[in-house]
Amino acid sequence: MSHSRTLRVDYEKTTRVLCVVGSELNVNLNRTAPLSSRFFSVKCTSSVQYRINPPPQETSHLSPIPLSDNSVLVISMKHASQYENDSKLSVQYYGEKKDVLGRAVLHLTAVEISLDVDADRDGIVEHNNPDKGSWKWGPDGHGAILLVNCDSERTYLKKPDHEQTSITRVSDLKDMSVMVLRTKGPAKLPEGYKLTMHISQGDAESVRVFRTRSPGVMNNSICEYRRSEVLSQEVPYLGGEAEMNFYVEGLRFPDRDFDGLISINLSLLEPIGEALPETPIFTDKVMLRVAPWIMTPNTLQPLEVFVCSTSDNYTFLNGMRNLVAKSGYKLNICHEYMNRGDRWMQDELEFGYIDSPHQRFPVVLDSPRDGKLQNFPYEELLGPNFGYVTRTAENEEVSSLDSFGNLEVSPPVTVNGKKYPLGRIIIGVAFPTATKGRNMTKVVQEFLFAQKVQEPVALFSDWLLVGHVDEFMTFVPASDRKCYLCLLCACPDAGYKLFRGLQNDGHGQAKMFDGLKDEEQITVDEILNDEILQSHNNYVQSCIDWNRDVLKRELGLDDDDIIDMPILFKLVEEMGSESRAVAYYPDMVNMIVLGKNLGIPKPFGPKVNGRCALEAEMCSLLEGLGLRCTFIDDFASYHKLLGEVHCGSNVRRQPFDFKWWNLEM
Amino acid sequence: MSHSRTLRVDYEKTTRVLCVVGSELNVNLNRTAPLSSRFFSVKCTSSVQYRINPPPQETSHLSPIPLSDNSVLVISMKHASQYENDSKLSVQYYGEKKDVLGRAVLHLTAVEISLDVDADRDGIVEHNNPDKGSWKWGPDGHGAILLVNCDSERTYLKKPDHEQTSITRVSDLKDMSVMVLRTKGPAKLPEGYKLTMHISQGDAESVRVFRTRSPGVMNNSICEYRRSEVLSQEVPYLGGEAEMNFYVEGLRFPDRDFDGLISINLSLLEPIGEALPETPIFTDKVMLRVAPWIMTPNTLQPLEVFVCSTSDNYTFLNGMRNLVAKSGYKLNICHEYMNRGDRWMQDELEFGYIDSPHQRFPVVLDSPRDGKLQNFPYEELLGPNFGYVTRTAENEEVSSLDSFGNLEVSPPVTVNGKKYPLGRIIIGVAFPTATKGRNMTKVVQEFLFAQKVQEPVALFSDWLLVGHVDEFMTFVPASDRKCYLCLLCACPDAGYKLFRGLQNDGHGQAKMFDGLKDEEQITVDEILNDEILQSHNNYVQSCIDWNRDVLKRELGLDDDDIIDMPILFKLVEEMGSESRAVAYYPDMVNMIVLGKNLGIPKPFGPKVNGRCALEAEMCSLLEGLGLRCTFIDDFASYHKLLGEVHCGSNVRRQPFDFKWWNLEM
Repeated sequence: MSHSRTLRVDYEKTTRVLCVVGSELNVNLNRTAPLSSRFFSVKCTSSVQYRINPPPQETSHLSPIPLSDNSVLVISMKHASQYENDSKLSVQYYGEKKDVLGRAVLHLTAVEISLDVDADRDGIVEHNNPDKGSWKWGPDGHGAILLVNCDSERTYLKKPDHEQTSITRVSDLKDMSVMVLRTKGPAKLPEGYKLTMHISQGDAESVRVFRTRSPGVMNNSICEYRRSEVLSQEVPYLGGEAEMNFYVEGLRFPDRDFDGLISINLSLLEPIGEALPETPIFTDKVMLRVAPWIMTPNTLQPLEVFVCSTSDNYTFLNGMRNLVAKSGYKLNICHEYMNRGDRWMQDELEFGYIDSPHQRFPVVLDSPRDGKLQNFPYEELLGPNFGYVTRTAENEEVSSLDSFGNLEVSPPVTVNGKKYPLGRIIIGVAFPTATKGRNMTKVVQEFLFAQKVQEPVALFSDWLLVGHVDEFMTFVPASDRKCYLCLLCACPDAGYKLFRGLQNDGHGQAKMFDGLKDEEQITVDEILNDEILQSHNNYVQSCIDWNRDVLKRELGLDDDDIIDMPILFKLVEEMGSESRAVAYYPDMVNMIVLGKNLGIPKPFGPKVNGRCALEAEMCSLLEGLGLRCTFIDDFASYHKLLGEVHCGSNVRRQPFDFKWWNLEM
Repeated sequence: MSHSRTLRVDYEKTTRVLCVVGSELNVNLNRTAPLSSRFFSVKCTSSVQYRINPPPQETSHLSPIPLSDNSVLVISMKHASQYENDSKLSVQYYGEKKDVLGRAVLHLTAVEISLDVDADRDGIVEHNNPDKGSWKWGPDGHGAILLVNCDSERTYLKKPDHEQTSITRVSDLKDMSVMVLRTKGPAKLPEGYKLTMHISQGDAESVRVFRTRSPGVMNNSICEYRRSEVLSQEVPYLGGEAEMNFYVEGLRFPDRDFDGLISINLSLLEPIGEALPETPIFTDKVMLRVAPWIMTPNTLQPLEVFVCSTSDNYTFLNGMRNLVAKSGYKLNICHEYMNRGDRWMQDELEFGYIDSPHQRFPVVLDSPRDGKLQNFPYEELLGPNFGYVTRTAENEEVSSLDSFGNLEVSPPVTVNGKKYPLGRIIIGVAFPTATKGRNMTKVVQEFLFAQKVQEPVALFSDWLLVGHVDEFMTFVPASDRKCYLCLLCACPDAGYKLFRGLQNDGHGQAKMFDGLKDEEQITVDEILNDEILQSHNNYVQSCIDWNRDVLKRELGLDDDDIIDMPILFKLVEEMGSESRAVAYYPDMVNMIVLGKNLGIPKPFGPKVNGRCALEAEMCSLLEGLGLRCTFIDDFASYHKLLGEVHCGSNVRRQPFDFKWWNLEM
């Protein structure tokens, strides 16, 4: 921001002027000169610098300068004053014959004012960064960062801190961006001058600023912007060389109507007179961007695993407990008093995080699904350094597609040279051409798109009865691939191929669901003879291929990056609705990925020499990537209820090392 | 958009395939190959092209190719088919010993499909522009343009055309963007295939598409998108080589929640089976941007002048009639039955226009002011090729700052190298630091900012009782200046200087308001002795200087580009409010600019040798720029009511030659 202002100076008067170091005062010399002035001269104390525009012809140092219609005296000061009016400047006007006609005198006081933020993103609030007033993405970018203060310092009677209008614990300040007002000058500002912090009307609902009364001590919020018309507030001038800390918290995440950018201004106001508004004579501005909510793909290191305990899932829980223990992570069990029988831990919430140079913490996105697990994210997860955000569907119908088994994220990818170092979000919807069908609610979709840093890809998942993308795809780490990932896709064709191979090798009488006492068993031959099942799976294959083509295109994947998993589906007809697909046997792609350990739904496939052929095939496909397969029996308690291991679990993971503000946008 | 899709092919079967010219079909050869297949070969008719991925080793043309896990056959066709299934391709599979194991046969039908718009912005809908699916600003940019169809073809019972859901006159099609669906292929699509046009949910409230039933004949809307959930609609395939015209109209201008971009998609749907949704196997996309509303500065050629006739403004009207006739323009008089005594033609509306390569027309922005003139824009202006747009303040108070004397636009400027070839909008608000004060309504401000092409500058106008920027500034053409414009600013200091000069020259007893019989006259000496008036004007000068500094910075102006006009103000105290300023004598800066002719409020200044000193000064300041001053007596009927010539008139001007889409953004 260029700081240049016009100063009105009358002759035969002494004008007291406050000058901000780094800014310029322009005096239009002719405008208020005595009549018939033809020349002028300027004198000042050494603390004042001046120049004349247009520059006068070279003349003797002492001879007066010709006054032209547009002579402008440009005054500046390099250092703050110690005392009020400690600097002087005078302009003397002369007539045709160099006779003195009048004299204007300025008594100047200089102050330094700088509103500072961490514009270079190193965690330290530097002094007067020239780029602090704008925001630029990328490693050579600049601009400060702000977190939505969505965790809760309080653990009882809790609610997200940004919904509290005061600070209850000093620890809360760590979640805020420090903003420093640095001033230097005399002990007091000249009479009537004051400092004001202000934001625009549009930013008011997105940001709040707190101030400590004395440095180092947390105090009540005395300078606070709420969602109100009070967009401007005086802040004290401390005198001498001083720093005052402010703490800035975000109130809302980027969304359809909010790009995440916020400006905060600090102005110096000059008094004019009673019943007249004070004039801002200097304004400093800082810009901050609200950190987006970021999802964590399967390739990131797990931190905690979450599952539900129900009256009937002992077998599953046991399998999960063993897997998680073996992998060396922490297992969190949500008990029945909290889950009320809702076992779908994947569907009620999505773990993510927010990040800034000064603070980072996990944030749970609570789904509008609101099953019986609905209180879990708020009651159990929200807490100190654990944030919470949700979107509520106001005028929209919430469908199964709003469960977060239908919200995933890819590992980092590069697509036609464009890098997505934080991956891309993946959601499932109806075909874009569909005139009916289920969709993910607009509020959630708009939220996801507005975060910007993991640009979403929309797949077609409405062909599934449950309708979640995790029913037909997942990502696993693959250190040997160019992009360090493999996309696993359910593939009925691969299933049929495997079954035909079994038949061909003389295992046509081997039985599916062998060892499940409540399940009707069916032979490989019977499966292969079922033409309806084959036609259903041809349809399913075409749906998956459609998505596979989209994923190849939108994630820049080759066929080599994709592994087709032998999984069959069947179609079930809903009352008065389209036929939709469910897994024919446990849907092995619906797995939990814990580093190199995979927890895969036990498929109960036909046995060859005592070993399940489906398990054998999975191991053969995945162990080559250095992954270890553990098959978990989820048949009775999950598969029969149309979900599997992934649907019944959730994983909080380590955030990315990559900083989102270093993205090239 | 890359058009590549996976095709499932079974051996021992004939698969009928529809292939879109320009797209590729990927057949995963291994997936459905007969068991123990080791080799394959491909044969096809000359109309079909294929390649194999990964490319096989060089072998004899006739020997079968080894089958690998990831062998993909990529099929494409260069020309549309004349008949269904007129092209063939077969894949033969071989065992270890080159024994034939099976054969998959494809019967192919090729179609050409292209959804086209005027993506190169030359007024012609070219064929399949590679950039049609995206939008880029600038002379080397691309992307089609759409108008908000906001004029009314009907002149009785009229309303803006976009509020009508059907087309009532063929002429209305000229206001829409033509979109052409070009297809080539057999007489019919294969059984069950169909074409569908679709838009996203978010675009639905911004665009509507019409289609003619037969080329050249306007017809009822049979393909129409309304603000409803019907976002997808089948369109017929005409057969052979065919073009079908669509007409696209915008429904809303860019605004806070709408960036102006709209995508329209055309998909080819493949039937799958009963009760299953059809699969989009090919999608073509076009992107259009809604044209912004553009204001016209004083430097553009006038077309029509508008004034009100009231019972008491005969003198003014006469002056205006003479000026407009002399300048050679058309004068439109709004009579009393319509204006109901509201004479402020400037305040109720702002003239602008919308532009596209295919159509351009004026659009009036109706102010939320809604004085007694409120019906004029809709009733008198809206019509064929004259559009109408308004913004209504829902939960906001409308103040005097919402009158469009407070909405102006600068001529083209360049600011620190950044070009604004359409100028910048100028509005007046309270100081950004103010805790109270009047503002322009948020709805109007957001509308203005969202148009993007004339980025607004906010001035401080709340210091004025009426609060309009046209009370202290205007722009005039100046062919001798580097930027072809002069900014005229009211300047009390220049006024005092002039009066002091008069006094000095012995005219201290000359009288202000001389010849006005109902006005108390006052001498130059009396004015100069009034210390309160001087202090009021010092304050006014500081307010104007603040704005002058903003204008210099935001429009890249030098002091040389600004002329200070000798105008005094006085402060009046409002009940329980701040003191605010009104012009002391007719505010000469509040003028009408008609080419080089200026219609200036007659100031009734002190006379010297029979000539008004203020008029003489104005002429001396402005005639040097090649401008001609005409002084219009608006004293009784406008000045005394706190307005002047500009407030009481409006000018519709020629649009810019510069095309907004050529802006570098």
